[in-house]
Amino acid sequence: MSPKELVTISFKPGGMNVEAERGSCLLDVMKAVSLAIRSDCGGKGICGKCRVITKDQTSLTQVTRAEKDMIPYQLKLGYRLACECSVVGDATVYLPKESRNVVRRILVEGAQRRVRVEPIIRKVFLRISPPTLQDVRSDAKRLQDAVNEIYGIKGVSIDYQLMKELPRILRNSDWRVTAAILDEREVISLEKGNTTEEAYGIAVDIGTSKVIIYLIDLFKGRLIAAESVENPQTKHGEDVISRISYSDSKQRVREMQQLVISTLNKLILQACKKSGLKPRCIYEATVVGNTAMHHFILGLQPKHLGLSPYVPVVATPINEKARNLGLRLNTAANVYVFPIIAGFLGGDAVADIISTGIYESDDLEIALDIGTNTEVVIGNKDGLMACSCASGPAFEGAHVKCGMKAATGAIERLRIETKKFSVDYKVIDGSKPLGLCGSGIIDAVASLLKCGLIDRNGALADSSLTPRIKGIGKKKSFVLVSRTEGAARDIVITQQDIREVQMAKAAIYTGCYILMKRKKVSLRDLKKLHVAGAFGNYLDLENSKMIGLLPDVPTELISLVGNAAGAGARMALISKKLRETAAVISRRVDYVELASEPDFQEEFTSAMFFPHKDLNRFNSIKKLF
Amino acid sequence: MSPKELVTISFKPGGMNVEAERGSCLLDVMKAVSLAIRSDCGGKGICGKCRVITKDQTSLTQVTRAEKDMIPYQLKLGYRLACECSVVGDATVYLPKESRNVVRRILVEGAQRRVRVEPIIRKVFLRISPPTLQDVRSDAKRLQDAVNEIYGIKGVSIDYQLMKELPRILRNSDWRVTAAILDEREVISLEKGNTTEEAYGIAVDIGTSKVIIYLIDLFKGRLIAAESVENPQTKHGEDVISRISYSDSKQRVREMQQLVISTLNKLILQACKKSGLKPRCIYEATVVGNTAMHHFILGLQPKHLGLSPYVPVVATPINEKARNLGLRLNTAANVYVFPIIAGFLGGDAVADIISTGIYESDDLEIALDIGTNTEVVIGNKDGLMACSCASGPAFEGAHVKCGMKAATGAIERLRIETKKFSVDYKVIDGSKPLGLCGSGIIDAVASLLKCGLIDRNGALADSSLTPRIKGIGKKKSFVLVSRTEGAARDIVITQQDIREVQMAKAAIYTGCYILMKRKKVSLRDLKKLHVAGAFGNYLDLENSKMIGLLPDVPTELISLVGNAAGAGARMALISKKLRETAAVISRRVDYVELASEPDFQEEFTSAMFFPHKDLNRFNSIKKLF
Repeated sequence: MSPKELVTISFKPGGMNVEAERGSCLLDVMKAVSLAIRSDCGGKGICGKCRVITKDQTSLTQVTRAEKDMIPYQLKLGYRLACECSVVGDATVYLPKESRNVVRRILVEGAQRRVRVEPIIRKVFLRISPPTLQDVRSDAKRLQDAVNEIYGIKGVSIDYQLMKELPRILRNSDWRVTAAILDEREVISLEKGNTTEEAYGIAVDIGTSKVIIYLIDLFKGRLIAAESVENPQTKHGEDVISRISYSDSKQRVREMQQLVISTLNKLILQACKKSGLKPRCIYEATVVGNTAMHHFILGLQPKHLGLSPYVPVVATPINEKARNLGLRLNTAANVYVFPIIAGFLGGDAVADIISTGIYESDDLEIALDIGTNTEVVIGNKDGLMACSCASGPAFEGAHVKCGMKAATGAIERLRIETKKFSVDYKVIDGSKPLGLCGSGIIDAVASLLKCGLIDRNGALADSSLTPRIKGIGKKKSFVLVSRTEGAARDIVITQQDIREVQMAKAAIYTGCYILMKRKKVSLRDLKKLHVAGAFGNYLDLENSKMIGLLPDVPTELISLVGNAAGAGARMALISKKLRETAAVISRRVDYVELASEPDFQEEFTSAMFFPHKDLNRFNSIKKLF
Repeated sequence: MSPKELVTISFKPGGMNVEAERGSCLLDVMKAVSLAIRSDCGGKGICGKCRVITKDQTSLTQVTRAEKDMIPYQLKLGYRLACECSVVGDATVYLPKESRNVVRRILVEGAQRRVRVEPIIRKVFLRISPPTLQDVRSDAKRLQDAVNEIYGIKGVSIDYQLMKELPRILRNSDWRVTAAILDEREVISLEKGNTTEEAYGIAVDIGTSKVIIYLIDLFKGRLIAAESVENPQTKHGEDVISRISYSDSKQRVREMQQLVISTLNKLILQACKKSGLKPRCIYEATVVGNTAMHHFILGLQPKHLGLSPYVPVVATPINEKARNLGLRLNTAANVYVFPIIAGFLGGDAVADIISTGIYESDDLEIALDIGTNTEVVIGNKDGLMACSCASGPAFEGAHVKCGMKAATGAIERLRIETKKFSVDYKVIDGSKPLGLCGSGIIDAVASLLKCGLIDRNGALADSSLTPRIKGIGKKKSFVLVSRTEGAARDIVITQQDIREVQMAKAAIYTGCYILMKRKKVSLRDLKKLHVAGAFGNYLDLENSKMIGLLPDVPTELISLVGNAAGAGARMALISKKLRETAAVISRRVDYVELASEPDFQEEFTSAMFFPHKDLNRFNSIKKLF
């Protein structure tokens, strides 16, 4: 035997030089020196993932049939598959980014936490041998065998509707197909050629007033598009209780389900159109919502959510095929509906817990999700306690005379000068002011309080103090921006509005306080306060403390987290593990029914004061009063 | 303490006398002496199964609340629940049949084998505690917990459509419900009160020409009704090949599926109406059919069944919910479609194997299922080999001039007197003769052969022999019953008919012979020959051997088994274990593609003779020629 001849391979980037026997398989060499190259099929020439680039083709063996099949276009650009070529001379080999085997980490925008991209969907490229008289296995068996032989996934089932398309797809694609496999157990889609890079999902946040979808690249974890629209169920009631009352028959439950589903289908189409995607490339959805929205989207009778003792039909996570819900994604796409905690504590609270990470914190934290119902969660990795407060829609701009949603024309920031009572304000999109959104309402009440124009009971001062105060008794109001000052109409805050704010903030504060008391902790123990909700990041924290909406913790401990529920849905969409976590959380959270707490009424009444009847609970602002 | 007082209990029937302490629980006494009494819940007063009858109520403690709930009507008849009463005096206790804990065995009519009744459905009665403010578990969780607590079945899921009805059913029934549980894993139905005795299933046999359903009591294994009708797909072709050609688009596949499904729905309604049952009490279906029927009912594209290399879309058993197929049973009923063996060997062959029991025989057996395609299976518990013969529809009365199905007016038995050639015959239902069914055709040909009116080549004798022979050459025919003899029309058998019979019987014989050859066995090794098919039990075995349709085995080894495929479907309906067996069989049967056997053509040609070119293969009738 002749002595072994050696060649030198230089790997870029990184610059590692490796000596190898002439004729060695390039992939083997790379594996031997632990170069992190992707090779999903383990070197069988099937996955097309171990792509490398080389300038000098003479240093490698000739292009193979497999390479022509797998990377026809890339060949011209100097690409090769490392598993298919052997080294016959000194070579310089470049590893493109997509071939490097790194753990993908991604920041889900809007949430504070990073999550590892581990979707429940996997896509695999398959070259299946066509049938012959000697090999008459069924189409289904050929597919199953290929998935097992190439990727080691045993005994996958095949979606029944997909089964009907199997013969056509396999033959039209010349037996080269990509399978989308759900949770390593069911083939839910089969596509011509290699589409392993294309996998999308949607995270759905069904709010009482707003429906939002996020279209996400499942493998990159990247947000592609977001669409939102008013919840069309509002025509049957602004709040969940009215909608529950409306849904008193099977037909009406079905109608309410259809309203959400058809809206989602429109949003899906919009998002797909903008992104140039087909809905059938969406293999997954996660859905969050409060308990009523949870029941509505599943078509479950919500009646008993509204009747004592307020039990849901089901609380565990639900997985259903898109077609069974009427959602127009891939027909076999899996729709994961978040678990709920109790009759008034829904999947949105679970998603809040997931996205804020409170469940794995070492320190004591509180998460508030402010809305018509405000969810409060307290705890850390050792245990969580939660309640739901009937805070009403004041902070969403409803039940407030000049209130409006946080949209163009809404005053989102406001300050009243303490002497002349002139008003500075900021309008969303800088347009003409039309009304007040939640953060504007809080600013207005806090400013009036600072100016001494309302007392700690919430009573507006006498109109003699300033011409901006008009009317008497319950009809009294303070003109923030008059028509003459450029508003479309007089924008006022009324005595009644102030009462609404008092009730809302008292409900929220009472929820926080009672949970702290039950947990036997004080404000000093609290290391973080997450505030989620419709305000987004526009809430003025000092003003919020001023009126007693938030407990008196140092501002640096408060974190505004925007749509935490939506963020939780997005995180769960790309992480199988987080769904398991969500199920565990939903079972373990200790639910407190506020109304049956003995000190609820007294606490609530005391919290109606600004900032509270007991000023010692607001030490940091005590001096202002 | 006072000495223990004893009482005597006399158990009927059987007459066992037992002494027990006064105050003992009756069920405990019965268990202590190993009386085989049912007690599904283990004495918790929940299942209502441990019913006993006593004449003298004073010997037992008073009727309890549980008894009033469970057996309100039976109480008046002297029934009690053994777990609920204690013995306070000498008593005579009668065990009614339904309370005795015996292994239920049942003969499935039409098949030869007994099968243990072990349906995949279980029904359990539940008393669920209603929610309170202290116990706010969801409706679903309450149901799941009750199933686990009372019957030890953990983690059952709940059918999604049923989930929608959950709140209503639970509350309308005052939280006393019966759950139907599929395979110990999914609640598919929930019913008011105790309906544990009511569970039905249907076995479906989809033949190329006839669709049959059998309505069965799942727990008693008893046949309640059977309905059948012509397969409506015949409008798109008498044979499967024409129907496969017709189904060249998605729409047509769907149409063919709908034709069968809507026919089945009609049959289901008929059967339910006659039996006074509601379709929603049918929790299960099993379906057999040849490969084309298998594909049609599942809506699978059958195209490639008809194109070399003849591969099916899927061969493994399919389980789908009734609603996904459009079958109007309980919406979540499980429909089990039999596995198939190969492109030309369907679930009917698997069902034949199940019902004849050939797969567990010690001896070598053959099972023939004669139809347009004839399935032949040979083997025993050590292995099975099978093939499909294109025998054509002659024995079903088609492609034969005066042929007809085995219905009123068909001549089913026939004999020709050897001297004067007068004809004796028997007509189904004793009516005026209209034509010949399969068994009549065989009798006619065999009789002509015996009389020497056809030779071993199948050629009809000269018309000079008898005026019953008319015409010349290929147009020659033999008049069996003329109009003047009372027939509605001249009933004849033509030269062409004889050719059809020759081809059919040659195909079947060749199938048997080639399998025996491949198995390396001779006729002497054969211990049983099962003959299934449209003839029912009317086939004349001697005549069948005479023409060489059946191999020359002693008549006592031949067993006519009627609709063996339907019997297999019925057996699998009440036996979970047999379904597992069916899946194993479908994978293990060694399929032989006759057309690619090298000696097929020669064997077929030799088998065209009556009974065969080689008379030594028909030793028992050799002397007749």
